[in-house]
Amino acid sequence: MTGFVSLVGAGPGDPDLLTRRALDRLAKAELVLHDALGPADVGALAPQARRFFVGKRCGRHALDQDSINQLLVRSARRGLRVVRLKGGDPFVLGRGGEEALALVAAGIPFEIVPGVSSSIAGPALAGIPVTHRGLSAGFAVISGHQPATWQPVLAGLPPASITLVVLMGLGQRAAIADFLIGKGWSPSTPAALVFGASTPAQRTWTGSLAEVGAVAEEGDLPGLLVVGPVVELSAVLAPALAAPAAAAR
Amino acid sequence: MTGFVSLVGAGPGDPDLLTRRALDRLAKAELVLHDALGPADVGALAPQARRFFVGKRCGRHALDQDSINQLLVRSARRGLRVVRLKGGDPFVLGRGGEEALALVAAGIPFEIVPGVSSSIAGPALAGIPVTHRGLSAGFAVISGHQPATWQPVLAGLPPASITLVVLMGLGQRAAIADFLIGKGWSPSTPAALVFGASTPAQRTWTGSLAEVGAVAEEGDLPGLLVVGPVVELSAVLAPALAAPAAAAR
Repeated sequence: MTGFVSLVGAGPGDPDLLTRRALDRLAKAELVLHDALGPADVGALAPQARRFFVGKRCGRHALDQDSINQLLVRSARRGLRVVRLKGGDPFVLGRGGEEALALVAAGIPFEIVPGVSSSIAGPALAGIPVTHRGLSAGFAVISGHQPATWQPVLAGLPPASITLVVLMGLGQRAAIADFLIGKGWSPSTPAALVFGASTPAQRTWTGSLAEVGAVAEEGDLPGLLVVGPVVELSAVLAPALAAPAAAAR
Repeated sequence: MTGFVSLVGAGPGDPDLLTRRALDRLAKAELVLHDALGPADVGALAPQARRFFVGKRCGRHALDQDSINQLLVRSARRGLRVVRLKGGDPFVLGRGGEEALALVAAGIPFEIVPGVSSSIAGPALAGIPVTHRGLSAGFAVISGHQPATWQPVLAGLPPASITLVVLMGLGQRAAIADFLIGKGWSPSTPAALVFGASTPAQRTWTGSLAEVGAVAEEGDLPGLLVVGPVVELSAVLAPALAAPAAAAR
Protein backbone atom coordinates (compact mmCIF):
# COMPACT_ATOMS: atom_id res chain seq x y z
CA MET A 1 0.00 0.00 0.00
CA THR A 2 1.26 3.46 -0.87
CA GLY A 3 1.27 6.11 1.80
CA PHE A 4 0.46 9.75 1.46
CA VAL A 5 2.42 12.99 1.77
CA SER A 6 1.02 16.30 3.02
CA LEU A 7 3.19 19.33 2.16
CA VAL A 8 2.13 21.59 5.00
CA GLY A 9 2.79 25.25 5.74
CA ALA A 10 3.43 25.79 9.46
CA GLY A 11 3.06 29.57 9.42
CA PRO A 12 5.62 31.98 10.85
CA GLY A 13 6.44 30.09 14.06
CA ASP A 14 3.61 30.42 16.58
CA PRO A 15 1.80 27.04 16.68
CA ASP A 16 -1.52 28.91 17.07
CA LEU A 17 -1.06 30.08 13.48
CA LEU A 18 -1.25 26.52 12.13
CA THR A 19 -4.44 25.81 10.18
CA ARG A 20 -7.08 23.28 11.21
CA ARG A 21 -6.04 21.09 8.26
CA ALA A 22 -2.37 21.25 9.28
CA LEU A 23 -3.29 20.23 12.84
CA ASP A 24 -5.39 17.32 11.52
CA ARG A 25 -2.57 16.03 9.30
CA LEU A 26 -0.03 16.30 12.12
CA ALA A 27 -2.33 14.46 14.54
CA LYS A 28 -2.61 11.55 12.06
CA ALA A 29 1.00 11.60 10.86
CA GLU A 30 3.32 8.60 11.21
CA LEU A 31 6.38 10.56 10.08
CA VAL A 32 7.07 14.30 10.23
CA LEU A 33 9.98 15.92 8.39
CA HIS A 34 10.13 19.50 9.62
CA ASP A 35 12.23 22.57 9.26
CA ALA A 36 9.63 24.69 11.05
CA LEU A 37 8.67 24.70 14.76
CA GLY A 38 10.72 23.15 17.54
CA PRO A 39 10.84 19.45 18.50
CA ALA A 40 8.63 20.04 21.57
CA ASP A 41 5.88 21.71 19.52
CA VAL A 42 6.00 19.05 16.81
CA GLY A 43 5.99 16.30 19.44
CA ALA A 44 2.86 17.71 21.06
CA LEU A 45 1.07 18.15 17.74
CA ALA A 46 2.10 14.82 16.19
CA PRO A 47 2.27 12.39 19.13
CA GLN A 48 2.13 9.23 16.97
CA ALA A 49 4.85 10.28 14.56
CA ARG A 50 8.56 9.72 14.24
CA ARG A 51 9.99 13.20 13.83
CA PHE A 52 13.08 14.44 12.03
CA PHE A 53 14.37 17.99 11.85
CA VAL A 54 15.66 18.53 8.32
CA GLY A 55 16.19 22.31 8.35
CA LYS A 56 19.20 24.50 9.04
CA ARG A 57 21.32 23.90 12.13
CA CYS A 58 24.25 26.18 12.89
CA GLY A 59 23.91 27.73 9.42
CA ARG A 60 24.06 24.39 7.56
CA HIS A 61 21.25 22.27 6.15
CA ALA A 62 20.84 19.01 8.08
CA LEU A 63 19.83 17.31 4.81
CA ASP A 64 20.11 18.53 1.21
CA GLN A 65 17.02 18.90 -0.98
CA ASP A 66 17.60 15.71 -3.00
CA SER A 67 17.89 13.66 0.18
CA ILE A 68 14.65 15.17 1.54
CA ASN A 69 12.85 14.36 -1.74
CA GLN A 70 14.12 10.78 -1.63
CA LEU A 71 13.14 10.39 2.02
CA LEU A 72 9.60 11.60 1.26
CA VAL A 73 9.26 9.12 -1.63
CA ARG A 74 10.77 6.15 0.24
CA SER A 75 8.65 6.77 3.35
CA ALA A 76 5.42 7.00 1.34
CA ARG A 77 6.33 3.79 -0.52
CA ARG A 78 6.60 2.09 2.87
CA GLY A 79 2.95 3.06 3.35
CA LEU A 80 3.46 5.87 5.83
CA ARG A 81 1.34 8.99 6.28
CA VAL A 82 4.01 11.65 5.99
CA VAL A 83 3.83 15.34 6.87
CA ARG A 84 6.47 17.62 5.37
CA LEU A 85 6.19 20.66 7.65
CA LYS A 86 7.69 23.84 6.23
CA GLY A 87 8.00 27.36 7.64
CA GLY A 88 5.42 29.85 6.41
CA ASP A 89 3.75 28.66 3.21
CA PRO A 90 5.25 25.71 1.30
CA PHE A 91 5.26 27.60 -2.02
CA VAL A 92 6.80 30.88 -0.81
CA LEU A 93 10.55 30.48 -1.30
CA GLY A 94 10.29 27.09 0.40
CA ARG A 95 11.05 24.63 -2.42
CA GLY A 96 7.62 23.06 -1.98
CA GLY A 97 7.30 22.96 -5.76
CA GLU A 98 10.43 20.84 -6.07
CA GLU A 99 9.16 18.36 -3.49
CA ALA A 100 5.77 18.23 -5.21
CA LEU A 101 7.41 17.51 -8.59
CA ALA A 102 9.51 14.72 -7.04
CA LEU A 103 6.32 13.16 -5.61
CA VAL A 104 4.55 13.38 -8.98
CA ALA A 105 7.54 11.76 -10.71
CA ALA A 106 7.43 8.89 -8.21
CA GLY A 107 3.66 8.48 -8.45
CA ILE A 108 3.10 9.28 -4.74
CA PRO A 109 -0.30 10.75 -3.81
CA PHE A 110 0.07 14.07 -2.02
CA GLU A 111 -1.64 17.32 -1.11
CA ILE A 112 -0.68 20.93 -0.51
CA VAL A 113 -1.82 22.54 2.75
CA PRO A 114 -1.25 26.29 2.40
CA GLY A 115 0.04 28.14 5.45
CA VAL A 116 0.15 31.64 6.86
CA SER A 117 3.09 33.25 5.07
CA SER A 118 5.69 35.11 7.12
CA SER A 119 5.91 37.60 4.26
CA ILE A 120 2.48 38.96 5.24
CA ALA A 121 2.11 37.89 8.89
CA GLY A 122 5.59 39.05 9.89
CA PRO A 123 4.92 42.68 9.00
CA ALA A 124 1.31 42.41 10.31
CA LEU A 125 2.38 41.29 13.77
CA ALA A 126 4.75 44.26 13.86
CA GLY A 127 1.83 46.59 13.09
CA ILE A 128 2.59 46.93 9.37
CA PRO A 129 -0.20 46.18 6.88
CA VAL A 130 1.46 45.23 3.56
CA THR A 131 -1.36 47.06 1.78
CA HIS A 132 -3.30 50.12 2.94
CA ARG A 133 -5.65 52.35 0.99
CA GLY A 134 -3.85 55.50 -0.12
CA LEU A 135 -0.41 54.13 0.76
CA SER A 136 0.02 50.87 -1.14
CA ALA A 137 -2.30 48.84 -3.38
CA GLY A 138 0.04 45.88 -3.52
CA PHE A 139 3.23 44.27 -2.34
CA ALA A 140 6.14 42.31 -3.74
CA VAL A 141 7.86 39.46 -1.93
CA ILE A 142 11.35 38.57 -3.08
CA SER A 143 14.29 36.50 -1.96
CA GLY A 144 17.21 38.63 -0.84
CA HIS A 145 19.55 35.66 -0.86
CA GLN A 146 21.41 36.52 -4.07
CA PRO A 147 21.80 39.78 -6.05
CA ALA A 148 21.16 37.76 -9.24
CA THR A 149 17.55 37.22 -8.14
CA TRP A 150 16.66 40.56 -6.56
CA GLN A 151 18.51 42.99 -8.82
CA PRO A 152 16.46 42.43 -12.02
CA VAL A 153 13.19 42.87 -10.13
CA LEU A 154 14.20 45.87 -8.05
CA ALA A 155 15.82 47.55 -11.06
CA GLY A 156 12.43 48.09 -12.68
CA LEU A 157 10.14 48.67 -9.72
CA PRO A 158 9.08 52.33 -9.59
CA PRO A 159 10.21 53.81 -6.22
CA ALA A 160 7.72 53.20 -3.39
CA SER A 161 5.03 52.10 -5.89
CA ILE A 162 4.41 48.95 -3.93
CA THR A 163 5.39 47.58 -0.51
CA LEU A 164 8.58 45.56 -0.72
CA VAL A 165 9.08 42.51 1.53
CA VAL A 166 12.48 40.82 1.38
CA LEU A 167 12.81 37.34 2.87
CA MET A 168 16.18 35.67 3.46
CA GLY A 169 17.79 39.02 2.83
CA LEU A 170 19.37 39.99 6.14
CA GLY A 171 22.87 39.40 4.84
CA GLN A 172 22.18 41.59 1.81
CA ARG A 173 20.25 44.36 3.57
CA ALA A 174 22.90 47.05 3.06
CA ALA A 175 23.36 46.11 -0.62
CA ILE A 176 19.59 46.08 -1.22
CA ALA A 177 19.09 49.47 0.48
CA ASP A 178 21.98 51.01 -1.49
CA PHE A 179 20.65 49.55 -4.73
CA LEU A 180 17.16 50.96 -4.15
CA ILE A 181 18.52 54.41 -3.27
CA GLY A 182 20.66 54.25 -6.43
CA LYS A 183 17.49 53.54 -8.43
CA GLY A 184 15.78 56.65 -7.13
CA TRP A 185 14.07 55.49 -3.93
CA SER A 186 14.28 58.25 -1.34
CA PRO A 187 16.79 57.52 1.45
CA SER A 188 14.04 58.53 3.87
CA THR A 189 11.61 55.81 2.66
CA PRO A 190 10.31 54.10 5.81
CA ALA A 191 11.83 50.66 6.40
CA ALA A 192 11.52 47.95 9.05
CA LEU A 193 13.36 44.81 10.05
CA VAL A 194 11.23 42.20 11.81
CA PHE A 195 13.12 39.45 13.64
CA GLY A 196 11.54 36.21 14.92
CA ALA A 197 8.03 37.21 13.80
CA SER A 198 5.21 35.64 15.86
CA THR A 199 7.61 34.06 18.37
CA PRO A 200 8.12 35.24 21.97
CA ALA A 201 11.47 36.67 20.81
CA GLN A 202 9.89 38.94 18.16
CA ARG A 203 11.68 42.27 17.78
CA THR A 204 11.14 45.07 15.31
CA TRP A 205 13.42 47.87 14.18
CA THR A 206 11.96 50.76 12.21
CA GLY A 207 13.76 53.64 10.54
CA SER A 208 14.64 54.73 7.02
CA LEU A 209 16.06 52.98 3.98
CA ALA A 210 19.32 54.89 4.49
CA GLU A 211 19.72 53.38 7.98
CA VAL A 212 18.93 49.73 7.18
CA GLY A 213 22.50 48.69 6.45
CA ALA A 214 23.75 49.73 9.88
CA VAL A 215 21.19 47.75 11.93
CA ALA A 216 22.67 44.81 13.84
CA GLU A 217 21.21 41.32 13.40
CA GLU A 218 19.39 39.72 16.32
CA GLY A 219 21.38 36.56 16.96
CA ASP A 220 20.10 33.64 14.90
CA LEU A 221 16.53 34.93 14.60
CA PRO A 222 15.16 34.84 11.05
CA GLY A 223 14.42 38.32 9.82
CA LEU A 224 12.61 40.09 7.06
CA LEU A 225 12.92 43.56 5.57
CA VAL A 226 9.89 45.72 4.74
CA VAL A 227 10.23 48.91 2.70
CA GLY A 228 7.50 51.42 1.93
CA PRO A 229 5.23 54.11 3.37
CA VAL A 230 3.06 51.46 5.13
CA VAL A 231 5.89 51.00 7.64
CA GLU A 232 4.91 54.34 9.20
CA LEU A 233 1.61 52.84 10.36
CA SER A 234 3.54 50.71 12.84
CA ALA A 235 4.17 53.81 14.95
CA VAL A 236 0.42 53.89 15.66
CA LEU A 237 -0.50 50.21 15.41
CA ALA A 238 2.39 48.40 17.09
CA PRO A 239 1.94 49.98 20.58
CA ALA A 240 -1.79 49.24 20.44
CA LEU A 241 -1.64 45.61 19.38
CA ALA A 242 -2.63 43.47 22.30
CA ALA A 243 -0.51 40.45 23.12
CA PRO A 244 -2.29 37.21 22.11
CA ALA A 245 -2.16 36.05 25.75
CA ALA A 246 -4.30 39.01 26.81
CA ALA A 247 -6.72 38.30 23.99
CA ALA A 248 -7.12 34.66 24.99
CA ARG A 249 -8.47 35.51 28.48
CA MET B 1 -15.86 47.28 30.92
CA THR B 2 -14.36 47.56 27.46
CA GLY B 3 -14.57 44.60 25.13
CA PHE B 4 -12.04 43.37 22.68
CA VAL B 5 -11.82 43.13 18.89
CA SER B 6 -9.99 40.42 16.96
CA LEU B 7 -9.33 41.29 13.31
CA VAL B 8 -9.18 37.78 11.92
CA GLY B 9 -8.16 36.40 8.52
CA ALA B 10 -10.46 33.57 7.48
CA GLY B 11 -8.31 32.27 4.64
CA PRO B 12 -9.52 31.68 1.08
CA GLY B 13 -12.88 30.08 1.94
CA ASP B 14 -12.41 26.50 3.14
CA PRO B 15 -13.03 26.54 6.94
CA ASP B 16 -10.21 23.98 7.34
CA LEU B 17 -7.80 26.76 6.38
CA LEU B 18 -8.70 28.83 9.45
CA THR B 19 -5.91 28.99 12.03
CA ARG B 20 -6.11 27.61 15.54
CA ARG B 21 -6.17 31.17 16.89
CA ALA B 22 -8.99 32.15 14.54
CA LEU B 23 -11.01 29.10 15.68
CA ASP B 24 -10.38 29.99 19.33
CA ARG B 25 -11.53 33.59 18.89
CA LEU B 26 -14.65 32.53 16.98
CA ALA B 27 -15.54 29.97 19.66
CA LYS B 28 -15.39 32.71 22.34
CA ALA B 29 -16.95 35.48 20.26
CA GLU B 30 -20.13 37.27 21.30
CA LEU B 31 -20.43 39.13 17.98
CA VAL B 32 -19.06 38.24 14.56
CA LEU B 33 -19.01 40.70 11.66
CA HIS B 34 -18.00 38.72 8.62
CA ASP B 35 -17.56 39.13 4.91
CA ALA B 36 -15.87 35.75 4.62
CA LEU B 37 -17.43 32.26 4.92
CA GLY B 38 -21.14 31.51 4.79
CA PRO B 39 -23.66 31.92 7.66
CA ALA B 40 -23.75 28.13 8.27
CA ASP B 41 -19.97 27.91 8.66
CA VAL B 42 -19.82 30.96 10.92
CA GLY B 43 -22.74 29.65 12.97
CA ALA B 44 -20.99 26.34 13.55
CA LEU B 45 -17.69 27.99 14.46
CA ALA B 46 -19.13 30.78 16.65
CA PRO B 47 -22.18 29.21 18.31
CA GLN B 48 -22.43 31.83 21.09
CA ALA B 49 -22.21 34.84 18.82
CA ARG B 50 -24.66 37.13 17.11
CA ARG B 51 -23.56 37.13 13.50
CA PHE B 52 -23.82 39.77 10.80
CA PHE B 53 -22.75 39.50 7.21
CA VAL B 54 -21.23 42.85 6.24
CA GLY B 55 -19.66 41.95 2.87
CA LYS B 56 -20.87 42.27 -0.70
CA ARG B 57 -24.31 41.03 -1.65
CA CYS B 58 -25.44 41.22 -5.28
CA GLY B 59 -22.42 43.37 -6.08
CA ARG B 60 -23.11 45.96 -3.35
CA HIS B 61 -21.58 46.32 0.09
CA ALA B 62 -24.10 45.52 2.82
CA LEU B 63 -22.43 48.17 5.00
CA ASP B 64 -19.87 50.84 4.11
CA GLN B 65 -16.45 50.95 5.74
CA ASP B 66 -17.26 53.82 8.12
CA SER B 67 -20.34 52.03 9.39
CA ILE B 68 -18.32 48.84 9.98
CA ASN B 69 -15.69 50.81 11.89
CA GLN B 70 -18.37 52.45 14.05
CA LEU B 71 -20.08 49.10 14.69
CA LEU B 72 -16.77 47.60 15.85
CA VAL B 73 -16.13 50.49 18.22
CA ARG B 74 -19.69 50.63 19.62
CA SER B 75 -19.83 46.87 20.16
CA ALA B 76 -16.49 46.80 21.99
CA ARG B 77 -17.64 49.74 24.18
CA ARG B 78 -20.65 47.64 25.17
CA GLY B 79 -18.13 45.12 26.50
CA LEU B 80 -18.46 42.50 23.76
CA ARG B 81 -15.81 40.13 22.47
CA VAL B 82 -15.97 40.91 18.77
CA VAL B 83 -14.50 39.00 15.84
CA ARG B 84 -14.16 40.86 12.55
CA LEU B 85 -13.76 37.96 10.11
CA LYS B 86 -12.28 38.91 6.76
CA GLY B 87 -11.49 36.87 3.64
CA GLY B 88 -7.86 35.79 3.22
CA ASP B 89 -5.55 37.90 5.38
CA PRO B 90 -6.88 41.09 7.02
CA PHE B 91 -3.99 43.20 5.69
CA VAL B 92 -3.99 42.03 2.06
CA LEU B 93 -6.29 44.42 0.21
CA GLY B 94 -8.83 43.94 2.99
CA ARG B 95 -8.95 47.33 4.73
CA GLY B 96 -7.81 45.71 7.96
CA GLY B 97 -5.45 48.64 8.49
CA GLU B 98 -8.32 51.11 8.38
CA GLU B 99 -10.28 49.15 10.95
CA ALA B 100 -7.20 48.87 13.16
CA LEU B 101 -6.63 52.65 13.01
CA ALA B 102 -10.28 53.28 13.92
CA LEU B 103 -9.89 51.01 16.96
CA VAL B 104 -6.69 52.77 18.04
CA ALA B 105 -8.38 56.16 17.70
CA ALA B 106 -11.24 54.96 19.93
CA GLY B 107 -8.92 53.34 22.48
CA ILE B 108 -10.32 49.84 21.93
CA PRO B 109 -7.97 46.92 22.65
CA PHE B 110 -7.56 44.67 19.64
CA GLU B 111 -5.35 42.09 17.97
CA ILE B 112 -4.48 40.99 14.44
CA VAL B 113 -4.87 37.30 13.62
CA PRO B 114 -3.12 36.75 10.28
CA GLY B 115 -4.78 34.36 7.84
CA VAL B 116 -3.90 32.24 4.83
CA SER B 117 -3.89 34.68 1.92
CA SER B 118 -5.81 33.78 -1.22
CA SER B 119 -3.01 35.44 -3.17
CA ILE B 120 -0.72 32.52 -2.33
CA ALA B 121 -3.16 29.70 -1.49
CA GLY B 122 -5.36 30.31 -4.53
CA PRO B 123 -2.58 29.60 -7.01
CA ALA B 124 -1.21 26.79 -4.76
CA LEU B 125 -4.49 24.88 -4.71
CA ALA B 126 -4.53 25.11 -8.52
CA GLY B 127 -1.04 23.54 -8.64
CA ILE B 128 0.82 26.83 -9.12
CA PRO B 129 3.68 27.66 -6.71
CA VAL B 130 4.08 31.46 -6.70
CA THR B 131 7.85 30.93 -6.42
CA HIS B 132 9.93 28.08 -7.85
CA ARG B 133 13.69 27.79 -8.13
CA GLY B 134 14.79 28.64 -11.66
CA LEU B 135 11.41 30.11 -12.62
CA SER B 136 10.60 32.83 -10.11
CA ALA B 137 12.35 34.08 -6.96
CA GLY B 138 9.45 36.26 -5.91
CA PHE B 139 5.92 37.41 -6.56
CA ALA B 140 3.91 40.62 -6.61
CA VAL B 141 0.32 40.89 -5.42
CA ILE B 142 -1.67 43.84 -6.67
CA SER B 143 -5.23 45.04 -6.78
CA GLY B 144 -6.66 44.97 -10.29
CA HIS B 145 -9.64 47.07 -9.26
CA GLN B 146 -8.51 50.35 -10.82
CA PRO B 147 -5.96 51.17 -13.56
CA ALA B 148 -4.70 54.03 -11.35
CA THR B 149 -3.33 51.49 -8.87
CA TRP B 150 -2.01 48.74 -11.15
CA GLN B 151 -0.62 50.77 -14.05
CA PRO B 152 2.27 52.49 -12.21
CA VAL B 153 3.46 49.18 -10.76
CA LEU B 154 3.13 47.11 -13.91
CA ALA B 155 4.70 49.85 -16.03
CA GLY B 156 8.07 49.28 -14.37
CA LEU B 157 8.08 45.56 -13.68
CA PRO B 158 10.53 43.82 -16.03
CA PRO B 159 8.59 41.23 -18.11
CA ALA B 160 8.21 37.85 -16.37
CA SER B 161 10.82 38.84 -13.74
CA ILE B 162 8.46 37.88 -10.95
CA THR B 163 5.16 36.03 -10.65
CA LEU B 164 2.24 38.42 -10.85
CA VAL B 165 -0.93 37.78 -8.82
CA VAL B 166 -3.85 40.13 -9.43
CA LEU B 167 -6.69 40.15 -6.91
CA MET B 168 -10.02 41.86 -7.57
CA GLY B 169 -8.95 42.18 -11.18
CA LEU B 170 -11.40 40.03 -13.09
CA GLY B 171 -13.19 43.01 -14.59
CA GLN B 172 -9.87 44.46 -15.75
CA ARG B 173 -8.29 41.22 -16.98
CA ALA B 174 -8.31 42.17 -20.67
CA ALA B 175 -6.91 45.65 -19.95
CA ILE B 176 -4.19 44.25 -17.69
CA ALA B 177 -3.15 41.61 -20.24
CA ASP B 178 -3.06 44.17 -23.05
CA PHE B 179 -1.05 46.57 -20.89
CA LEU B 180 1.54 43.91 -20.02
CA ILE B 181 1.90 42.85 -23.67
CA GLY B 182 2.32 46.52 -24.60
CA LYS B 183 5.14 46.75 -22.03
CA GLY B 184 7.04 43.89 -23.62
CA TRP B 185 5.64 40.81 -21.88
CA SER B 186 5.40 37.98 -24.40
CA PRO B 187 1.79 37.24 -25.45
CA SER B 188 2.64 33.57 -24.84
CA THR B 189 3.51 34.16 -21.14
CA PRO B 190 1.63 31.46 -19.18
CA ALA B 191 -1.41 32.79 -17.32
CA ALA B 192 -4.13 31.31 -15.14
CA LEU B 193 -7.47 32.38 -13.73
CA VAL B 194 -8.47 30.68 -10.49
CA PHE B 195 -12.14 30.99 -9.48
CA GLY B 196 -13.51 30.12 -6.03
CA ALA B 197 -10.13 28.94 -4.73
CA SER B 198 -10.35 26.34 -1.93
CA THR B 199 -14.14 26.00 -2.20
CA PRO B 200 -15.98 22.99 -3.69
CA ALA B 201 -16.69 25.19 -6.72
CA GLN B 202 -13.01 25.87 -7.46
CA ARG B 203 -12.25 26.06 -11.20
CA THR B 204 -9.03 26.94 -12.99
CA TRP B 205 -8.39 28.16 -16.50
CA THR B 206 -4.84 28.15 -17.86
CA GLY B 207 -3.57 29.53 -21.13
CA SER B 208 -1.50 32.47 -22.30
CA LEU B 209 -1.52 36.18 -21.53
CA ALA B 210 -2.91 36.84 -25.01
CA GLU B 211 -5.97 34.69 -24.26
CA VAL B 212 -6.84 36.02 -20.78
CA GLY B 213 -9.20 38.74 -21.98
CA ALA B 214 -11.49 36.28 -23.77
CA VAL B 215 -12.07 33.95 -20.80
CA ALA B 216 -15.59 34.03 -19.41
CA GLU B 217 -16.19 34.70 -15.70
CA GLU B 218 -17.53 31.91 -13.53
CA GLY B 219 -20.76 33.34 -12.18
CA ASP B 220 -20.23 35.21 -8.93
CA LEU B 221 -17.14 33.29 -7.87
CA PRO B 222 -14.23 35.48 -6.75
CA GLY B 223 -11.29 35.07 -9.09
CA LEU B 224 -7.62 35.84 -9.29
CA LEU B 225 -5.21 36.16 -12.20
CA VAL B 226 -1.72 34.64 -12.11
CA VAL B 227 0.87 35.50 -14.75
CA GLY B 228 4.33 33.97 -15.14
CA PRO B 229 6.30 30.85 -16.07
CA VAL B 230 5.29 29.13 -12.78
CA VAL B 231 1.79 28.69 -14.22
CA GLU B 232 3.17 25.93 -16.46
CA LEU B 233 3.83 23.76 -13.39
CA SER B 234 0.07 23.38 -12.95
CA ALA B 235 -0.01 21.05 -15.98
CA VAL B 236 2.02 18.58 -13.90
CA LEU B 237 0.89 19.40 -10.37
CA ALA B 238 -2.85 20.05 -10.69
CA PRO B 239 -3.80 16.55 -11.93
CA ALA B 240 -1.72 14.99 -9.16
CA LEU B 241 -3.04 17.03 -6.25
CA ALA B 242 -5.22 14.81 -4.12
CA ALA B 243 -8.57 16.08 -2.95
CA PRO B 244 -8.47 16.96 0.76
CA ALA B 245 -11.29 14.45 1.41
CA ALA B 246 -9.06 11.63 0.20
CA ALA B 247 -6.23 12.90 2.36
CA ALA B 248 -8.40 12.97 5.48
CA ARG B 249 -9.15 9.22 5.40
